[in-house]
Amino acid sequence: MDTNELMKEALAYHAEGGPGKIEIRPTKPDATQYDLSLAYSPGVAAPCLAIADDPAKAYDYTIKGNLVAVITNGTAVLGLGDIGPLAAKPVMEGKCMLFKHFSGINAFDIEIDTTDPEEFIAAVKRIAPTFGGINLEDIKAPECFEIERRLVEELDIPVMHDDQHGTAIIASAALINAMYLSGKRIDEAQIVVNGAGAAAIACARMFLALGARRDQITMCDSRGVVTTRRTDLNPVKREFATSRPVTTLREALVGADVFLGVSTAGVLDADMVRSMAGNPLVMALANPDPEISYDEAKAARPDVIVATGRTDYPNQVNNVLGFPYIFRGALDVRARKINETMKLAAAHALAELAREEVPAELAAAFGVDRLEFGPDYLIPKLTDPRLLGRVAPAVARAAVESGVAQRRPDIE
Amino acid sequence: MDTNELMKEALAYHAEGGPGKIEIRPTKPDATQYDLSLAYSPGVAAPCLAIADDPAKAYDYTIKGNLVAVITNGTAVLGLGDIGPLAAKPVMEGKCMLFKHFSGINAFDIEIDTTDPEEFIAAVKRIAPTFGGINLEDIKAPECFEIERRLVEELDIPVMHDDQHGTAIIASAALINAMYLSGKRIDEAQIVVNGAGAAAIACARMFLALGARRDQITMCDSRGVVTTRRTDLNPVKREFATSRPVTTLREALVGADVFLGVSTAGVLDADMVRSMAGNPLVMALANPDPEISYDEAKAARPDVIVATGRTDYPNQVNNVLGFPYIFRGALDVRARKINETMKLAAAHALAELAREEVPAELAAAFGVDRLEFGPDYLIPKLTDPRLLGRVAPAVARAAVESGVAQRRPDIE
Repeated sequence: MDTNELMKEALAYHAEGGPGKIEIRPTKPDATQYDLSLAYSPGVAAPCLAIADDPAKAYDYTIKGNLVAVITNGTAVLGLGDIGPLAAKPVMEGKCMLFKHFSGINAFDIEIDTTDPEEFIAAVKRIAPTFGGINLEDIKAPECFEIERRLVEELDIPVMHDDQHGTAIIASAALINAMYLSGKRIDEAQIVVNGAGAAAIACARMFLALGARRDQITMCDSRGVVTTRRTDLNPVKREFATSRPVTTLREALVGADVFLGVSTAGVLDADMVRSMAGNPLVMALANPDPEISYDEAKAARPDVIVATGRTDYPNQVNNVLGFPYIFRGALDVRARKINETMKLAAAHALAELAREEVPAELAAAFGVDRLEFGPDYLIPKLTDPRLLGRVAPAVARAAVESGVAQRRPDIE
Repeated sequence: MDTNELMKEALAYHAEGGPGKIEIRPTKPDATQYDLSLAYSPGVAAPCLAIADDPAKAYDYTIKGNLVAVITNGTAVLGLGDIGPLAAKPVMEGKCMLFKHFSGINAFDIEIDTTDPEEFIAAVKRIAPTFGGINLEDIKAPECFEIERRLVEELDIPVMHDDQHGTAIIASAALINAMYLSGKRIDEAQIVVNGAGAAAIACARMFLALGARRDQITMCDSRGVVTTRRTDLNPVKREFATSRPVTTLREALVGADVFLGVSTAGVLDADMVRSMAGNPLVMALANPDPEISYDEAKAARPDVIVATGRTDYPNQVNNVLGFPYIFRGALDVRARKINETMKLAAAHALAELAREEVPAELAAAFGVDRLEFGPDYLIPKLTDPRLLGRVAPAVARAAVESGVAQRRPDIE
């Protein structure tokens, strides 16, 4: 289907049978006057008083504990840029669908009408009692960093900016397994990150958490390599400024083990891929068209491992492999935060799942005869039904072990 | 069932089968990768761009147009007082159930963590793009007046504080029909309002809109009659200060045609009811126990017309007769406001519906052989299925006629 046709279909999909993609429905009986006397006045006074007495009871008598807010101000929506809060609403409703579909979490979108970080933070803090967790979405850099940092610090429910950490966790899973396949070590790999926005910065930080040193990472933005010689860097980019004597992406890539692109279509060519070290990992995550296509990269050299954001090629790096299960795990143990330990646990759980044998029936469900860990099956498939049972418990366990869980269910 | 038993049942109702009373679900297909490519990336770009180009398209491609926020800060919850935002959540979720049940509107509760009106207003304004309308709920007086006034003025979606106007609209319907029954005129009736909170003030203001003059209304608060001689009045109460030479509720009621209580149980006795004019209307709306019970009032004098908040007696004044249909009507024509004209239209539509013949099958559904307009059937029953088709169109028509509708569907 060509793009125009898909866009026409998408408009029809959003309008037909009633505008929008989600609804709010009662989960309890509401047919009789008696039902309503329990749900509302006078019976509702009982859970109200119980919660007034012990705030934790909100998790027993309201949907708070299984409710995540998907919050944006619409300043960096998909590849569309700053289209504002209202125009971002279809994306956010879509995200709410994905939450329910993949992890059973009730998610509700909130569009915030401000580009000022302080106003944004204030509004989110005020409405926070409503929710059990907050998924920040499509907020532009560098504001997203301060917004997330402050909300994580000042709220006692898990807050995660998915554009940063969702991407970072999946890319990390791919990196872990690419290193495994090629017999390389993360603390020795040369890594080039093209892009210096929210996702790129978060990926680079997570690679550090996985064992890379800062001097192994070369970051490029639209002006070339982010070097210590440049004077136009914001504090977040300065964190990754290199003293290497390179100024272009092409120069930076010579001998590199890993390319991570969170940038724009077509910036990588076959020569650049050929200039990389043996068994290189190319993660070309620009959407909808990657920095280099799977086919072009493979044609450049057969030993390359390629991951993109595309459904129609192997190794789709898609946040949906992360956020449903990360929040599921965090909510299940009522974590106060989603911390580094939990994110690493998610990345490792994803990587481990991909290395496991895929049952024949499951492979068949993916439309293939067999699926075996290797360059073209580096990370799990989006629709792998094992994800919920693997990633969420790993995140929950990490929350308990790192001391941010407020409840410890039988997760073993 | 005694109160303790009901409260126990209510706790179980809120917890069993999963905490809370509402859920968020997809309304569109989400089973296949193709479905998700329409709902989310890349297809979702189409509705995003359409809305960025024309904000009104949000009503075609998102749930905004059928989505109301139920917003509180928990400062005046039912009869429980200031229990805070989190403890108010069960009430708000219950209200969301009622919205869906009675008018098919998606309602989502937002609990706001502040008692400062400016902070409250700022937060609601920021999140407003999300919603098609805002139902303010259980916010204490006098802050609720300023909060509602400002939000109505500064937002372009309908905003209504239901504790004020919901009650006022239903009480006005009862007043219209009591006048009709007793052959009295509103512009000649002596009206005593006991209580000076949000609902009482809104009722008194609506009685003015129905034709009463200010000097026909005597208001009492916990210290007695609100008189021009008192120096302890806030500006809202001062609006209704009387120069009548009375200081107690008992004195004020002598010869009165109407008693409206939005106060506390038991403050009205048989002697006070007997001191009123012929065919008096007693609206004893304190919850769960009224200012005087139906039975006591009727025992005091046979010509009294009694309305309470109770399910188990005639003439239940319950906001559920109003808000679902008022918002339904407002949303259907995309009204920018819920204005006085629309509220009056709702009150008259309710009053007219009660005066209509009740079909035998409908009476049977209410558990009676026949139901006829009169002192014990002054306003429609909560479960009357005709309400949606009568009240919502009346409100929509009033919005169109008063110039606040942004769309004019075929409502005739």
